[in-house]
Amino acid sequence: MSLELKSANKVFGGWTKHYSHHSDRLNCDMRFAIYLPPQTAQGQKVPVIYFLSGLTCTDENFMHKAGAQRLAAELGIALVAPDTSPRGDDVANAETYDLGQGAGFYVNATEAPWNRHYHMYDYVLKELPRLIEETFPVSDQRSIFGHSMGGHGALVLALRNPERYRSVSAFSPICNPVNCPWGRQAFSTYLGDDRGAWEAYDASLLMRETDGGLPTLVDQGEADDFLDEQLRPGALEAAAEASGYPLTLRRQEGYDHSYFFISSFVDDHLRFHALHLDR
Amino acid sequence: MSLELKSANKVFGGWTKHYSHHSDRLNCDMRFAIYLPPQTAQGQKVPVIYFLSGLTCTDENFMHKAGAQRLAAELGIALVAPDTSPRGDDVANAETYDLGQGAGFYVNATEAPWNRHYHMYDYVLKELPRLIEETFPVSDQRSIFGHSMGGHGALVLALRNPERYRSVSAFSPICNPVNCPWGRQAFSTYLGDDRGAWEAYDASLLMRETDGGLPTLVDQGEADDFLDEQLRPGALEAAAEASGYPLTLRRQEGYDHSYFFISSFVDDHLRFHALHLDR
Repeated sequence: MSLELKSANKVFGGWTKHYSHHSDRLNCDMRFAIYLPPQTAQGQKVPVIYFLSGLTCTDENFMHKAGAQRLAAELGIALVAPDTSPRGDDVANAETYDLGQGAGFYVNATEAPWNRHYHMYDYVLKELPRLIEETFPVSDQRSIFGHSMGGHGALVLALRNPERYRSVSAFSPICNPVNCPWGRQAFSTYLGDDRGAWEAYDASLLMRETDGGLPTLVDQGEADDFLDEQLRPGALEAAAEASGYPLTLRRQEGYDHSYFFISSFVDDHLRFHALHLDR
Repeated sequence: MSLELKSANKVFGGWTKHYSHHSDRLNCDMRFAIYLPPQTAQGQKVPVIYFLSGLTCTDENFMHKAGAQRLAAELGIALVAPDTSPRGDDVANAETYDLGQGAGFYVNATEAPWNRHYHMYDYVLKELPRLIEETFPVSDQRSIFGHSMGGHGALVLALRNPERYRSVSAFSPICNPVNCPWGRQAFSTYLGDDRGAWEAYDASLLMRETDGGLPTLVDQGEADDFLDEQLRPGALEAAAEASGYPLTLRRQEGYDHSYFFISSFVDDHLRFHALHLDR
């Protein structure tokens, strides 16, 4: 796999870099961002936290707006932010912001024409970490977090693959997609009418069936416009209670769905992951 | 003067708010952003640091990308970010990014048609602080900083009005605009051919003639693409040396002109200003 460096900016003594590469699994060229903390300049291998972004985002939003590099530099942790879907003129798309490019929902699509490119689940789980770990001075210690659609992705990936991650967290995740408009639209489009296929991508349903599990932190703003209709954190709480899953879910008074919310609590999330990563 | 609230986002326990208002001096409607730290919710009056943005920016860039709210909340300081020029369909404009709307250069234009609206110097110096201090729970303790064109603006405003500010700082400022392409284009357009008029807006020329002066911090990235042709920090250093001005100018290895650079050192700037503000 060959990487092309698109930009490099020094920040907090390390480097935020954007690369493009060909993804075999997504069958198109993709971009991702990586923050390499200053420790890597001294040859030290550092753990990696993956951040999955929400609807309409690219590989840029998190690195520009979350303010995560400051503490990542201090803790000696790399950050990786993939794009939110396959991209390109020959990649299927939709007219609406919540489907198609920018809205991959971190699933492996089975329905045509989406199944030609939309395999973000496999890409984030395997192809991208393999590329990252072959290319950069990072260890195979991984944690994962995300926002909204990306919070859903992070929770599902960690619930189904606890051996791949040390910890998982989310800001304002779509907790129960089979029961919300965003999720039903995406799953019926990408996965078809078989509800059984949908359930493999629903964090609340998965958490209800899980014994044990990874350390899990969720923050949800109480002034979030999407709270009741789309995000449904109550479903995740009920699932954790039913299965005894180690979920910490915090409701934050006055905060909305924006990057201002993420930036306010990103340090808490980084410190949470750092507890579970060997450094 | 009446204010219209355009958005409000809770961040680090305080609020980032964007307002529009009619500016008498600019003869158009303007937007600005303010960060009110959590201390203001308890009725406490806090000092204000003004941030002047660079070319092409609006009232949004600093609040979204600089990561300044975290420490401002801790220190109990408000932040205000004005737009970078008058705006509107009836406001004179230019085809290029470095002149006209988004490029007011913090001067009072004397040439037609620019002199109908382009009075950013007066707006930032007087009209906006008066509005801020009448409206919000802030004191009349002010500091000022900025980036690139806004670094130039901050230095010039502080050098000419030391009684109005406690301290001044800049990231990658245009230090000697009468001797660089950006400055010569802007000053000849807004101020005409009289070089004497230009000199009142040149930080290096002003600093050379100043006795005493405000505590002043400048950070400049050494990998900044605009360093030698446009920014010319050496002129500012030479001026400070000639007049004994209390300038601290730091050259930061590897950093460029972007918000990644600002975010890496914004905490240093806030702590510097906090030393000089009564809190």
